[in-house]
Amino acid sequence: MFESAKLKHHVDKAVYRREEAKLRSALLNAQFELKEQGRFPVLILIAGVEGAGKGETVNLLNEWMDPRHIHARAFSQPSDEERERPPAWRFWRALPPKGEIGIFFGAWHTMPIVQRVMGQIDKGEFSTAVGEIQRLEKMLCDEGVLLVKYWFHLSKGQQKKRLHALEQDPKTRWRVTDVEWDYFKQYDRFIKVCEPFLRETSTGEAPWIVVPGADPHFRALTVGRHLLTVMRKRLDEENPKAPPKKAAPKKASPLPAPTDRLNVLSALELDQKMTKDAYGQELEEWQARLNLASRDPRFKAMSVVAVFEGNDGAGKGGAIRRVTQALDARCYDNVPVAAPTEEERAQPYLWRFWRHLPRHGNLAIFDRSWYGRVLVERIEGFCSDADWMRAYGEINDFEDSMVRHGSVVVKFWLAISKDEQYRRFKQREKVAFKRFKITKEDWRNRKKWDGYEAAVCDMVDRTSTASAPWTLVEANNKYHARIKVLKTLCTAIEDQLDRIPKKAIGRKSK
Amino acid sequence: MFESAKLKHHVDKAVYRREEAKLRSALLNAQFELKEQGRFPVLILIAGVEGAGKGETVNLLNEWMDPRHIHARAFSQPSDEERERPPAWRFWRALPPKGEIGIFFGAWHTMPIVQRVMGQIDKGEFSTAVGEIQRLEKMLCDEGVLLVKYWFHLSKGQQKKRLHALEQDPKTRWRVTDVEWDYFKQYDRFIKVCEPFLRETSTGEAPWIVVPGADPHFRALTVGRHLLTVMRKRLDEENPKAPPKKAAPKKASPLPAPTDRLNVLSALELDQKMTKDAYGQELEEWQARLNLASRDPRFKAMSVVAVFEGNDGAGKGGAIRRVTQALDARCYDNVPVAAPTEEERAQPYLWRFWRHLPRHGNLAIFDRSWYGRVLVERIEGFCSDADWMRAYGEINDFEDSMVRHGSVVVKFWLAISKDEQYRRFKQREKVAFKRFKITKEDWRNRKKWDGYEAAVCDMVDRTSTASAPWTLVEANNKYHARIKVLKTLCTAIEDQLDRIPKKAIGRKSK
Repeated sequence: MFESAKLKHHVDKAVYRREEAKLRSALLNAQFELKEQGRFPVLILIAGVEGAGKGETVNLLNEWMDPRHIHARAFSQPSDEERERPPAWRFWRALPPKGEIGIFFGAWHTMPIVQRVMGQIDKGEFSTAVGEIQRLEKMLCDEGVLLVKYWFHLSKGQQKKRLHALEQDPKTRWRVTDVEWDYFKQYDRFIKVCEPFLRETSTGEAPWIVVPGADPHFRALTVGRHLLTVMRKRLDEENPKAPPKKAAPKKASPLPAPTDRLNVLSALELDQKMTKDAYGQELEEWQARLNLASRDPRFKAMSVVAVFEGNDGAGKGGAIRRVTQALDARCYDNVPVAAPTEEERAQPYLWRFWRHLPRHGNLAIFDRSWYGRVLVERIEGFCSDADWMRAYGEINDFEDSMVRHGSVVVKFWLAISKDEQYRRFKQREKVAFKRFKITKEDWRNRKKWDGYEAAVCDMVDRTSTASAPWTLVEANNKYHARIKVLKTLCTAIEDQLDRIPKKAIGRKSK
Repeated sequence: MFESAKLKHHVDKAVYRREEAKLRSALLNAQFELKEQGRFPVLILIAGVEGAGKGETVNLLNEWMDPRHIHARAFSQPSDEERERPPAWRFWRALPPKGEIGIFFGAWHTMPIVQRVMGQIDKGEFSTAVGEIQRLEKMLCDEGVLLVKYWFHLSKGQQKKRLHALEQDPKTRWRVTDVEWDYFKQYDRFIKVCEPFLRETSTGEAPWIVVPGADPHFRALTVGRHLLTVMRKRLDEENPKAPPKKAAPKKASPLPAPTDRLNVLSALELDQKMTKDAYGQELEEWQARLNLASRDPRFKAMSVVAVFEGNDGAGKGGAIRRVTQALDARCYDNVPVAAPTEEERAQPYLWRFWRHLPRHGNLAIFDRSWYGRVLVERIEGFCSDADWMRAYGEINDFEDSMVRHGSVVVKFWLAISKDEQYRRFKQREKVAFKRFKITKEDWRNRKKWDGYEAAVCDMVDRTSTASAPWTLVEANNKYHARIKVLKTLCTAIEDQLDRIPKKAIGRKSK
C-alpha cells in the first residue's frame, strides 16, 4: 500500500497557491450542495503514522469549507459514559447526519491495530476485529454514508526527520514527547500490521487512500482533490429531484414460507392457564426477585436491554408495566419506538437505537425496536428486500456487541391468536379510556396477519442467537404472559450476576 | 437458525402430488429460460446434517428439471490434482457456466466446520475461514452468480430416528456405518459450530435457507418452491434484451493521481547500463541457477506462478524466453492471456486464471494476467468502476490462497519510457519478421499512456503484498531487464526451497 507514498513527492508553492484557490471554491460549492440536498452524510476517517500531517490537513479542510458543517472528533481514551457501552457506541453517537461532514481521527481501526502491534491480541482475534470492521463499514455504505478513508504516511526515514524538525522548532516542541519516540521505535512492527490491514479493509466502495505526508502542499492537494472528486461524483450521480419510487408490485419473498403452515408461532399453545390468584402470588415473587437483582452491587457492572415486540393488542404495555413496577425509576429507561424523528431519519437505521443503549446499572426497555426493519418495514415495503435481508446480519452484530460488552439482551415476542386480537380490538373500541389504543392502522395491519406471521418466523430463525435468544410468549392469557416475561428477564439477569466476579464491583461502580 | 426446522413439519401425499405437478413444470420452464438467456449461472450449495434428505432432494431436482443442464458435484477427499493446488481450486473448476445449474454437496464451508468441530482449528482460525467464505461468496454474487444455499436440518431426536430407520431397511442399510453414528455423537458440538456459522455467512444476497429434513414431501416442496422463486425473480428482473450500456462518459477516477507526477514508475531510472558481455555472463550464471533450483528434489513440493505485465513493447516475450530456456519443457506452462474465450466469458472473471494454476513441481508463466481487470478493463471501460475497485481485494485473496498453499508468486512490471516505446514500435514496423508484433491497437493504447500509468501505480500500491510483491523492472535496456527478471525469480524460488524441510519430499512427490 505504501509504495507510492514512500517517494519524495513535492509540489511547488506557486503551483499550490494556484491550485488551492480553485480547489477551495470547488469544495465549498460541493459542501453547499451537500447541505442543500441533505441526501447523504460524508464521513472521513483520518489515520496514519505520527507526524504525517493529519491535524494540519483537517485544519485546512475546515479553512477551505464552511466549518459549521464539519464536525471533527478525536477518539482517544473513552469517557465513563462511553466505557459503559459497547465500544462502537462512541462512534455511532458522533456520526454526521445527512448533509454534514464528519471527520474521525482514529476510529474503529485504532484499537485493534494498537493491540495487535503491542501483542495484546493474537492473529485470530485481529482477524475477527478486521471482519467486524468490514461489516460495519459495509453497513454504513449500504445505508448511504459516503465513507472516505485517508491514511497519512511517512517512511521511517521521513518520520525520524519530521520528529527532529518538530523538536527543534520552539513552536512545535511540545508535540514530541517520549511517547512519540516510543512509537517511532515500533515503526516497523506498526507498518507490518497496518499494511495488510489497509488492504483487507479496502473495498470497492470505501478504499483506503494513502496520502504521502512529508510535503504539506502535496498532501493537502491530494486530500482536497480526492475529496472533491468523490463528493462531486455522489452529488452528480443521484438525481435529488427523482420522484420517490412507487411501491413495488407485490412479489414473492426471497425467504420461503413453510408449505404446511406449521411455524414457530402456530406451534405455540397460545391459551395457557393461570388463575388470578396464582398470578398474584407469582407476580409478587418475581417482582421481588427482580427488584433484588437490580439492587445487587454487581448490577452496577452490567446493563440490560429488553426488547418487546408482539402482535397489536398482545399486551406489551401491560407486561412492561409489571417489569417497571419492580424497578427504581432511576435505573431504567422506557423507549417507545414510533416513527423516527427528523434527526433520526438523517442517520443510518440503527443510529436511533444505539443512542438509547443503557449505561452500567441500567435497563433500557424497548417497546418495539430495531426489529421494525424486518417486520413493518419489510411488510409495508418501506425498505427494499435487500435492505431488510441484510438487516438480520446487522442486527446480530449489533446485539453481539452488547452481549460481549456484558449486557443482558432479552427479546420477547408476545403472541396472541387472530380471534383473541379481534376480541381485544372490539373491547378497546367500547371502553372509553382504552379507545386511544385502537386506530384504523390497527385494523389495517390485521389484514396483513399472514405476512407479519411469516416475517416474525424469519426473524426468530435468523436472529435468535445463543447469547441473545428470542422468547416467544403465549399471550392469550395476560397473566401467563406477564409472569413468563418477568421470569425470563429475572433469570437472565440473575445468571449474568453470577458471572460477575465479586471483586469486579469496587472497580466498576463509582 | 433452526427454530422453525425443529417443528414437526408435514405435507400430505395428496397435497404433495398436486403441488409437485405444478412445481416441476414451472421449474422446467425457468430452467429453459435460464439456458436460453444464458445470462447467469445458478449455484446451489447443499449442506446440513446426515440423513436429512440432501441426496434425495437433489435427485428430485434432477428429475423435475432437465438433468443435462444440472451438474452435481460432491467434494469428498481431494484428488492428487486438487491437493497440489490451493483448496479453492476444486470449487472453481466445478463452477457452472452461465445458463447452467451447478449443485455442490459440501463446498468451501465443510472443511472449516469439520476442523472446528474436531478442535483442529481454534476460534480465531475459524473466524478467518468465515471471513474468506464471506469474501468468496460476495465475489461470486458480484460476478452475477445466483448463489442459493440450502441447509438440510434434523433435530437430534429426528436424526437418531432417521438413522435407525435407514438401518432397518435392507435397501438403505449400507448407508449407516459406524462413521454415521460417530457423527451423531458429535451432534451437539456440530450444531454449536454450525448455527452461528450459518448466521454469519447469511447475507442479503445469499442467505442460508434452512430446510426441515424429516418429512420428504415437506422438504422437497420447500426447496422446489424457493428455487423457483429466486430463479424467476432473477429471470424476470433483468431485461435480457436490454441494449449494452454505452461507454460511460469520461469521469474522474475514484482513486487520486499524485499532483506532482511523481509515481512508482516515473521514479524509476529506466536506462540501466549493461554491456552485452556482462549480460552473457550473468545470463549463463542465472539460467544455470534457475535450472538447478527447478531440479531440486524439494521443487516437487512447491509450485511457481510468474506474472509478466508491462508496457507494449517492453520485452515481456524476450524476458519470458530467457526464463523458459533454463527450464525443462515438461515443468512449465506458458499462458498467454488474450481476449477470453466463450467458455471463459460464461464464468466469473478469475475463473480463466484459476484453471491454469500449476501443480506441484511446475511453473505457470502468465504473459499478461488477471491484472487486466485493473489495467486494460479499467482504462477502456470494459468493466464498471465498482468492478475494478473490488478486484484489488479479490486479486489479493486469490494470490494469498496460492502463497498459503506453498506457491511462489512473482510479479513483474516491465517498464519502458514513452520515447523508447516509440523507437521500438517504429523498428517493429520496419523489420519484416517483427511486423506481426505491432498493430493499430498498440498505437491506440499508446495514446492512453497517462491513464495506464495511473492504473499501474494504483495496481502496485494495492496489490504488492509481503508474500506476493511486485517487481518493477527498468526495461529500456533489455539485458538489464532480463537479468533482473531471472535473478528475482530464481532467488524467490531458492528462498522457498530453503523453507521446505528435506523430509517433506518423500511424502509430497510421487
